[in-house]
Amino acid sequence: MHAVEVRDHIMIAHSFSGEVFGPAQKLHGATFVVDAAFFAQSLDANGIVIDIGRAHEVLKEVLTPLNFQNLDELPEFAGKNTTTEFLTRHIHDRLAEAARADRLGRPGSELHSIRVSLHESHVARAWYEAPIA
Amino acid sequence: MHAVEVRDHIMIAHSFSGEVFGPAQKLHGATFVVDAAFFAQSLDANGIVIDIGRAHEVLKEVLTPLNFQNLDELPEFAGKNTTTEFLTRHIHDRLAEAARADRLGRPGSELHSIRVSLHESHVARAWYEAPIA
Amino acid sequence: MHAVEVRDHIMIAHSFSGEVFGPAQKLHGATFVVDAAFFAQSLDANGIVIDIGRAHEVLKEVLTPLNFQNLDELPEFAGKNTTTEFLTRHIHDRLAEAARADRLGRPGSELHSIRVSLHESHVARAWYEAPIA
Amino acid sequence: MHAVEVRDHIMIAHSFSGEVFGPAQKLHGATFVVDAAFFAQSLDANGIVIDIGRAHEVLKEVLTPLNFQNLDELPEFAGKNTTTEFLTRHIHDRLAEAARADRLGRPGSELHSIRVSLHESHVARAWYEAPIA
Amino acid sequence: MHAVEVRDHIMIAHSFSGEVFGPAQKLHGATFVVDAAFFAQSLDANGIVIDIGRAHEVLKEVLTPLNFQNLDELPEFAGKNTTTEFLTRHIHDRLAEAARADRLGRPGSELHSIRVSLHESHVARAWYEAPIA
Amino acid sequence: MHAVEVRDHIMIAHSFSGEVFGPAQKLHGATFVVDAAFFAQSLDANGIVIDIGRAHEVLKEVLTPLNFQNLDELPEFAGKNTTTEFLTRHIHDRLAEAARADRLGRPGSELHSIRVSLHESHVARAWYEAPIA
Repeated sequence: MHAVEVRDHIMIAHSFSGEVFGPAQKLHGATFVVDAAFFAQSLDANGIVIDIGRAHEVLKEVLTPLNFQNLDELPEFAGKNTTTEFLTRHIHDRLAEAARADRLGRPGSELHSIRVSLHESHVARAWYEAPIA
Repeated sequence: MHAVEVRDHIMIAHSFSGEVFGPAQKLHGATFVVDAAFFAQSLDANGIVIDIGRAHEVLKEVLTPLNFQNLDELPEFAGKNTTTEFLTRHIHDRLAEAARADRLGRPGSELHSIRVSLHESHVARAWYEAPIA
Repeated sequence: MHAVEVRDHIMIAHSFSGEVFGPAQKLHGATFVVDAAFFAQSLDANGIVIDIGRAHEVLKEVLTPLNFQNLDELPEFAGKNTTTEFLTRHIHDRLAEAARADRLGRPGSELHSIRVSLHESHVARAWYEAPIA
Repeated sequence: MHAVEVRDHIMIAHSFSGEVFGPAQKLHGATFVVDAAFFAQSLDANGIVIDIGRAHEVLKEVLTPLNFQNLDELPEFAGKNTTTEFLTRHIHDRLAEAARADRLGRPGSELHSIRVSLHESHVARAWYEAPIA
Repeated sequence: MHAVEVRDHIMIAHSFSGEVFGPAQKLHGATFVVDAAFFAQSLDANGIVIDIGRAHEVLKEVLTPLNFQNLDELPEFAGKNTTTEFLTRHIHDRLAEAARADRLGRPGSELHSIRVSLHESHVARAWYEAPIA
Repeated sequence: MHAVEVRDHIMIAHSFSGEVFGPAQKLHGATFVVDAAFFAQSLDANGIVIDIGRAHEVLKEVLTPLNFQNLDELPEFAGKNTTTEFLTRHIHDRLAEAARADRLGRPGSELHSIRVSLHESHVARAWYEAPIA
């Protein structure tokens, strides 16, 4: 299996609901350094997994509506805990849509899966990996 | 698949038995930066894989008996080479016990697997990944 | 010149006032990975710059009132932009007070200066360095 | 599953053919920091996946013919785009040959797979993972 | 002293003249991860060293003419060895010009110095630091 | 001021004397990732601070007598606490001797100073910087 991974980041505010979160129930924030990995069983005729330039662009496009936001105020996240884990899946699903729409410089049907990793500090990170189809 | 990973470290002394180890047959030591990743097929009602605070605590608890020790003198390791690989599994198995005992803020039966990575320098690391059940 | 540096982190929310901040004028947040470096011209009789255990504790103590907070709501920061640069100095000054109070396992008069670095993402960081006296 | 990973690097020049590459169609270059991970289902009698010293040597041996080269001029790559993805597989296949030839301090039949990762900058990397057999 | 540092990167080809360079006398290449640090004695009224957005833009602007180039073919570098050290100074001097031209969101006269670091691999880097005036 | 920095590492065992060291009074060990930075006011005719190949060799030569050793048993360290800080200076002084002996591919008189950094974990490091003369 081949993979290509690109990196970007967002800075957001949010709060959590549930005793398990302790002090993180208060409004606080995070920098998430985001790695998006695209997997394919084989390379295309150019010798690439995807167009890495487009991967950077699509990742930026997916992150922009989140960047510099208070996630507690975004309607699409109403009633949800926007945990690191939740956000890995949210970003994954937007990237998978872009892949299926052939927006990564290669037919989405030639790609296998996507893994999105969010690094929240030097001692904690989370990721979500799932097929594109 | 979802994953959450937490980081800690230990500083230990040990020696190895076997010509393959060359100069590492002498008593020497290592800092191991330890990453413990917990995998689950789905998030719980709070939107998390595990309680990350408990994950940090349980990892610390597993590492404490090793930290600042000469591993050659620990009875449980008698007759063993406490290689980086060996230690990844040792730590994995202790963490898996904690998971099965429901000590990570979620029933162990809802977790899938654990991967323990030990970084021994800027040019070498090892990891062990296996199901919890 | 000798130096010892320890690392910790905080996760905070805040907003900025001023057009220069663009989208960061909205409430957002950040993870700051914090490095605190302590400088001394010479080592003490134990062969150390400071007691590294106490340095970790004092850094934690200085960071705790900030961690998981909305800095916009803290009275001591009223009317201030809590920029990365501002926070490097705030943390520096609290650490320098602890040093002068001989709380680092060595008389503050034997220490020279402190540098506090805040990493806000994989592409940006800031630091402040000044004498302790 | 156990794994051991070693790191080295190469500095090369090359150019690409195909509009997808944009400015990278011109002769340019890259530092590739190379991670080679070796996987095995179990440890040998010494408690290791492979002889890590030999792993470093074999990786160096595989990288040397590429290091400080203009890859456009190497006959074996004629007509190919030596993309990061292509090189992950090239290096993988040379390492797998070494593994099958029992050159890693353990019978190749006891090893499972190899993953080769090339870090091309702080925001992009690629890898290839496949069985040894 | 305060500082703010931003990161970007370039991928270039070049060759060196002189026996000291050994195999690097051949055409090869490098990824340089570039850190540009801006120093100031005090913060401005907004609480910043410089406008970090402009710092990223100016750094990008300085790097663009180098990126994806064979430096051996650039007229301005004719007869020069474009070593890592040489490039740190080249980039520094372009950034200092931008600072003196008040292009960093703050009068250049309020800034003190600039340090440019180029990371060429995981085991080697160089930097150049000098006043702006 | 120009600088070039190279990286290597050692793995050692040792123990400390003194209550300040707590559990580190027991025999334990560490991986030290070692950065050696060489400073010069100007570049030589080749456009370099030093011959980076020789810098790597000299650093390796200085580290070899320490690597895979129990530092408690080395006669030259008898009665000393081989703290991270102590070792930064020990390595510095050996590198400065090599610089003064013109062993870095440039007359030592053309070099200014050396800084040696030891990273002992992901949360702690120390360094020592002093002139060569």
